[in-house]
Amino acid sequence: MKILIINGPNLNLLGTREPLHYGTGTMDSVLDALKSQYPDVQFDYYQSNVEGFLIDRLHQTLEKPCDGVVLNAGAYTHTSVALRDAIAAIKVPVVEVHISNVHSREEFRHRSLISAVCKGVICGFGLVSYRLGVEALLACS
Amino acid sequence: MKILIINGPNLNLLGTREPLHYGTGTMDSVLDALKSQYPDVQFDYYQSNVEGFLIDRLHQTLEKPCDGVVLNAGAYTHTSVALRDAIAAIKVPVVEVHISNVHSREEFRHRSLISAVCKGVICGFGLVSYRLGVEALLACS
Amino acid sequence: MKILIINGPNLNLLGTREPLHYGTGTMDSVLDALKSQYPDVQFDYYQSNVEGFLIDRLHQTLEKPCDGVVLNAGAYTHTSVALRDAIAAIKVPVVEVHISNVHSREEFRHRSLISAVCKGVICGFGLVSYRLGVEALLACS
Amino acid sequence: MKILIINGPNLNLLGTREPLHYGTGTMDSVLDALKSQYPDVQFDYYQSNVEGFLIDRLHQTLEKPCDGVVLNAGAYTHTSVALRDAIAAIKVPVVEVHISNVHSREEFRHRSLISAVCKGVICGFGLVSYRLGVEALLACS
Amino acid sequence: MKILIINGPNLNLLGTREPLHYGTGTMDSVLDALKSQYPDVQFDYYQSNVEGFLIDRLHQTLEKPCDGVVLNAGAYTHTSVALRDAIAAIKVPVVEVHISNVHSREEFRHRSLISAVCKGVICGFGLVSYRLGVEALLACS
Amino acid sequence: MKILIINGPNLNLLGTREPLHYGTGTMDSVLDALKSQYPDVQFDYYQSNVEGFLIDRLHQTLEKPCDGVVLNAGAYTHTSVALRDAIAAIKVPVVEVHISNVHSREEFRHRSLISAVCKGVICGFGLVSYRLGVEALLACS
Amino acid sequence: MKILIINGPNLNLLGTREPLHYGTGTMDSVLDALKSQYPDVQFDYYQSNVEGFLIDRLHQTLEKPCDGVVLNAGAYTHTSVALRDAIAAIKVPVVEVHISNVHSREEFRHRSLISAVCKGVICGFGLVSYRLGVEALLACS
Amino acid sequence: MKILIINGPNLNLLGTREPLHYGTGTMDSVLDALKSQYPDVQFDYYQSNVEGFLIDRLHQTLEKPCDGVVLNAGAYTHTSVALRDAIAAIKVPVVEVHISNVHSREEFRHRSLISAVCKGVICGFGLVSYRLGVEALLACS
Amino acid sequence: MKILIINGPNLNLLGTREPLHYGTGTMDSVLDALKSQYPDVQFDYYQSNVEGFLIDRLHQTLEKPCDGVVLNAGAYTHTSVALRDAIAAIKVPVVEVHISNVHSREEFRHRSLISAVCKGVICGFGLVSYRLGVEALLACS
Amino acid sequence: MKILIINGPNLNLLGTREPLHYGTGTMDSVLDALKSQYPDVQFDYYQSNVEGFLIDRLHQTLEKPCDGVVLNAGAYTHTSVALRDAIAAIKVPVVEVHISNVHSREEFRHRSLISAVCKGVICGFGLVSYRLGVEALLACS
Amino acid sequence: MKILIINGPNLNLLGTREPLHYGTGTMDSVLDALKSQYPDVQFDYYQSNVEGFLIDRLHQTLEKPCDGVVLNAGAYTHTSVALRDAIAAIKVPVVEVHISNVHSREEFRHRSLISAVCKGVICGFGLVSYRLGVEALLACS
Amino acid sequence: MKILIINGPNLNLLGTREPLHYGTGTMDSVLDALKSQYPDVQFDYYQSNVEGFLIDRLHQTLEKPCDGVVLNAGAYTHTSVALRDAIAAIKVPVVEVHISNVHSREEFRHRSLISAVCKGVICGFGLVSYRLGVEALLACS
Repeated sequence: MKILIINGPNLNLLGTREPLHYGTGTMDSVLDALKSQYPDVQFDYYQSNVEGFLIDRLHQTLEKPCDGVVLNAGAYTHTSVALRDAIAAIKVPVVEVHISNVHSREEFRHRSLISAVCKGVICGFGLVSYRLGVEALLACS
Repeated sequence: MKILIINGPNLNLLGTREPLHYGTGTMDSVLDALKSQYPDVQFDYYQSNVEGFLIDRLHQTLEKPCDGVVLNAGAYTHTSVALRDAIAAIKVPVVEVHISNVHSREEFRHRSLISAVCKGVICGFGLVSYRLGVEALLACS
Repeated sequence: MKILIINGPNLNLLGTREPLHYGTGTMDSVLDALKSQYPDVQFDYYQSNVEGFLIDRLHQTLEKPCDGVVLNAGAYTHTSVALRDAIAAIKVPVVEVHISNVHSREEFRHRSLISAVCKGVICGFGLVSYRLGVEALLACS
Repeated sequence: MKILIINGPNLNLLGTREPLHYGTGTMDSVLDALKSQYPDVQFDYYQSNVEGFLIDRLHQTLEKPCDGVVLNAGAYTHTSVALRDAIAAIKVPVVEVHISNVHSREEFRHRSLISAVCKGVICGFGLVSYRLGVEALLACS
Repeated sequence: MKILIINGPNLNLLGTREPLHYGTGTMDSVLDALKSQYPDVQFDYYQSNVEGFLIDRLHQTLEKPCDGVVLNAGAYTHTSVALRDAIAAIKVPVVEVHISNVHSREEFRHRSLISAVCKGVICGFGLVSYRLGVEALLACS
Repeated sequence: MKILIINGPNLNLLGTREPLHYGTGTMDSVLDALKSQYPDVQFDYYQSNVEGFLIDRLHQTLEKPCDGVVLNAGAYTHTSVALRDAIAAIKVPVVEVHISNVHSREEFRHRSLISAVCKGVICGFGLVSYRLGVEALLACS
Repeated sequence: MKILIINGPNLNLLGTREPLHYGTGTMDSVLDALKSQYPDVQFDYYQSNVEGFLIDRLHQTLEKPCDGVVLNAGAYTHTSVALRDAIAAIKVPVVEVHISNVHSREEFRHRSLISAVCKGVICGFGLVSYRLGVEALLACS
Repeated sequence: MKILIINGPNLNLLGTREPLHYGTGTMDSVLDALKSQYPDVQFDYYQSNVEGFLIDRLHQTLEKPCDGVVLNAGAYTHTSVALRDAIAAIKVPVVEVHISNVHSREEFRHRSLISAVCKGVICGFGLVSYRLGVEALLACS
Repeated sequence: MKILIINGPNLNLLGTREPLHYGTGTMDSVLDALKSQYPDVQFDYYQSNVEGFLIDRLHQTLEKPCDGVVLNAGAYTHTSVALRDAIAAIKVPVVEVHISNVHSREEFRHRSLISAVCKGVICGFGLVSYRLGVEALLACS
Repeated sequence: MKILIINGPNLNLLGTREPLHYGTGTMDSVLDALKSQYPDVQFDYYQSNVEGFLIDRLHQTLEKPCDGVVLNAGAYTHTSVALRDAIAAIKVPVVEVHISNVHSREEFRHRSLISAVCKGVICGFGLVSYRLGVEALLACS
Repeated sequence: MKILIINGPNLNLLGTREPLHYGTGTMDSVLDALKSQYPDVQFDYYQSNVEGFLIDRLHQTLEKPCDGVVLNAGAYTHTSVALRDAIAAIKVPVVEVHISNVHSREEFRHRSLISAVCKGVICGFGLVSYRLGVEALLACS
Repeated sequence: MKILIINGPNLNLLGTREPLHYGTGTMDSVLDALKSQYPDVQFDYYQSNVEGFLIDRLHQTLEKPCDGVVLNAGAYTHTSVALRDAIAAIKVPVVEVHISNVHSREEFRHRSLISAVCKGVICGFGLVSYRLGVEALLACS
């Protein structure tokens, strides 16, 4: 089984950025933990601050298929119709995750343009959200 | 460890109601599976169609404490400030779950009045959402 | 043929409450008249001020089936997504009725959350609205 | 007793237009049935696609009085203040009817500009809506 | 000098319609008074309930020019972009008049689609509004 | 003189719930103080988390009359049209009170559905609000 | 007969300010013309840039009565509830006038807070609007 | 092949009306050019300022079929639900065209009520828009 | 103890203005009654129709301190951010009062710009509202 | 003559993505057809999923001029002010095209941020939209 | 060179009012620093809490010209159309300044009614904003 | 002292693009002037049309620190939550600048998504805005 984890804008700063919202853990520790918890799953990871490169990466699943995507689209969650269209265009189930509880933050973070085309949404559990996303993909496939 | 699972209005019909949105599984099967998956966790279950009785049940955690609540508030998610206040008033972390992906349904289901005071939100994974809610409580406590 | 008539909040006061909007007739007189006009129809009547009990009563039609429901949801018409979901969940046609013409009253009474899942809507004809609701059920079944 | 039935735009196509919403019955069959069901009532019928001609016809009730109007204003229901003013200007009670349940269709069909000045509203019962409109006029006069 | 007075929908009922808003005077009395007050002005009068015929009449000023139009567009004031375009298309100054003070009536009467392309607006002075409209045309030409 | 004090959802937790907004006093101390301050007034007290039971209790004033109601409807203030209708239906003056200053809290707490049918509103003075409500009833009766 | 003409903020600059909207005539020339056209009318004139002083001046009509007010409230037209209340509080008919056609300018100039409590509105005829306002007062008194 | 070209309100003035937006060409020249460019196509042309007559003309395609309609509904584009229903009711593909680029004009011209039920939309190319509409019908049939 | 009572625009007319909303009592009678009811309190009173003068008077409490302000800001309640800032800038608790129940009047009176920075709000009890405001200040200080 | 065709995000998937909306043709076939249909026109083609690269490509027309651009901005149509500014900054006419009829899809696809600065818009004709865009450029240049 | 600095409501309290937003410096220190930094510029200073007096002061620049105005309109920034009109009416460039970053405060402070008619805007730099305003006037004149 | 100047989309065209809004000066001339005016400051400059690259560049200040950023985000000002998050994530003060007065242009340019997390905002002074931004950074550091 192959799962792709994608992080959007500013998530390269995880561990340093706004610890109040995002905690102090790093993405490396998340990936290491996942690999040891799910030894049968092959994880692939991608991060970019460029909306279009995230779309490119999603498109690649059409050529090099995987069984599911765990996507933290960061701020593009709230502004990108293009990302929504990319999710709808590929054939792989995508789980939307967020580290912070976006609903207890600014009003403009309450609206997600991508939720409607994702399999489901998980938010607010810190870095644990990524593992729950993987769990959801495994359970629903 | 003690976890309380609460279901709101119309969720007593699970397995019979609108299978397109809610599937054909029953809550009994969910609870049985949870008990066997998490033998160390003591599960309590409550369902009511009455907004005020759901509030009453949440209040009881002040007298008979538990370690977390998995709450599927059903339609009251979108209309109940009273439930929101009850969640904010108790001292136990509450995870909001939904069976269907509310964001791919009617506009009025996109707004949740309770998300902001919950620990986090999980939606769209069918009955698996309940297990992910339990998993989230265990991982974050 | 069995028809269930359900009245929502404050409609227990019919005949005494705001006669300008609701007239001076009582629900008893309505039911008596219906029974004599439609001797072949078996009428059941339920009233509650509790949103959740109205939902409970609608659910009962799944166990004890009837051929149609005439529902005056009163103020819950404008605020209850839970009632809407209950109507959508049962298998019986529901006719929404109102005694007053809600469209010539306050702005917030112009929006009905339940109309979209009812068979049809009848409003503004005083207590006659109930008989028209019965008539509609008979004609469309 | 004299009752005028008025149909607005596109309702001349009844029986051929969008059968999903409007069924396959024709207005002729409706009128024939009404005449035989209510032999003591004299029915008059008018249809036009022109907003102003519908207003003209309503005005004629000031010269050639009738006891009530059953009006299906079609799409003008949602856009015509002029029709609303015409209804308010004449002295005859007007019942607003719709064949389809406008509340389960597009958002812009949920708002009626004329309901507030009509006696009451009936919608969603197919061609039966016309007979219910007549019944309402008879019962309330 | 030639002035055209145009009345829109339902204004053929002046003197009989909703006296609370429109008074009991008739348009004939208005025209007679104008003719005697302004003997040097040639008045032309047109009324229709059909939006398109009002447009046709405005267009005729391109062939048979006049020096100004006093237009009471009635309810079309609030809904007709087509009338607005007709006013903008002709070369004659148009004064918008209303008998009642539309701003003290329903919300939807507060918006005029035609004011922006008219020379000016006069409303609230009963039938006197027509004379003030004429006065305005004479003073500004 | 008889005055009924009604508390809505979550107010059974007074003294324990969110002390920042609601202080640490209890309702018992409020009632005791009122009884000693106003020895000539007979106080009745009711609390429920169920919207419909609050309506039931208001209706009882029709059978067992009192001279006024001090109502803290809690979160139902912002969502309940049914409560509004119950207040309008009874014949007793109702004073709306709030412990916290709702206007300095979340946006959705700024709108009250019941103020328009109450005698007046008092908010922001902690538990003193109840005594001011009683004072207002005495002064205005 | 006594008529009071009141000008609001920035109208002291008439003749110099934004000639595109307001022309090049001065208020002195307007007043002189009015006095010679209506020799039987006693005109009083007041201008202030201070909202409260305009209110003070309107209040004075309660002590020193006049037969009507022609009011160009300038920008306060769009923002002042206090001025509206002052107009409603005095017993004299007030005619709202504007020099420019406010409806062909910025969106925020389309809303008037005072129209609803004025006798009527005249706008768009340059300085002629003042004379039409006087004419309206004379004709309607 | 038969194509019907329909023009809505004020388009009878083409060549004379607001040349800034609509240019100076006439509809006759457009039709002549089309006939010589597409000798195998039989063109029919209709123009009216009356919303209802445009609906009548669209209905005629049910009796006297054609292969497509090029419709410039003018201002009715933005206000007519009735026209939308007529387009949806007939069986012929309709192409919506506009001479000017409505999106660079007033806000209220940005919304089209008919686009959703048309085959497609073409706007902004002056009189060339009509030929592109014909081209689109030919290419897509 | 020193309490300052401030009245905003049009409240100098109390007793004469719109008795339906404001009753027939005068402010003098209110002040006399307060002085005899609270002999230990020193009352100061100020009224102005000028927004800026009300701000000036509030600022004076910084130099000549008092223990609380009862403020009826009249229409400025709904439009003045400047007054809000003045209240926030001084160190004295301010109680917002209204004579009428603003929530049962026009929509634009439902929004208060100053409530959020006041201690609390009292409205709807006629002139009694002032005494309740004093009572609130005494009880909460 | 040189024409540049630009495709925005996700349009690299044409032929494979959501055939319901976008059909099964490929962009290669479109370009081949255009080259044979318009042998005198030199076509250039560019596609990117990156908003900024699309802007870069538009800017290049300032150095290497062409006679027109056919732009299908895909999802950026609805969210990109930056693309709008790029179109306004270059000197070449741009025709906005869409394959699907965006107006019959989700609400958020009805708003285009770029239409106002394009020459015109063509949408809904499948891949034919591109040829119509070319045709429009040729006819209007 | 002459520059006028104007401060609006509550800015007389600078140094004492809400130090969190406005710091602890005083306006005197600002003016002293400006005079020594720009010895060739003649500074004039005016402050008032009265909207109309600020307008009066702006008008005086028509009689006693200056080369530019640095205006901190305080709360009137968000509510005063009259001030906007005064700025547009005078011939001197006006720079809008704010001490605090209004965009990181309450929603209603994000909208400025005067920015559109000012030369430019500077906000968020504490008392330094005034010097930047002067600098801007010098650089752009 | 090190200051980074960042320009967003389309600002590479400065000097050629829409001179009405942006003038004819180039960025090179701005940078040269700054270097000679502030010889002690080390300036760094970056421009990109790609939203994500601008974010990348802001992130670099975490590794290669500078003392402040002058950011003209161009059109991304109005649409980019991702850029906002990047500004909030870095530790350097950022000054938002605009060449044109965005408040006197289209409505959608009035909203800035980034102002709330910037130190302050400067707009409308042409290329001088950049120098004022530098000045602000120097004065506030």
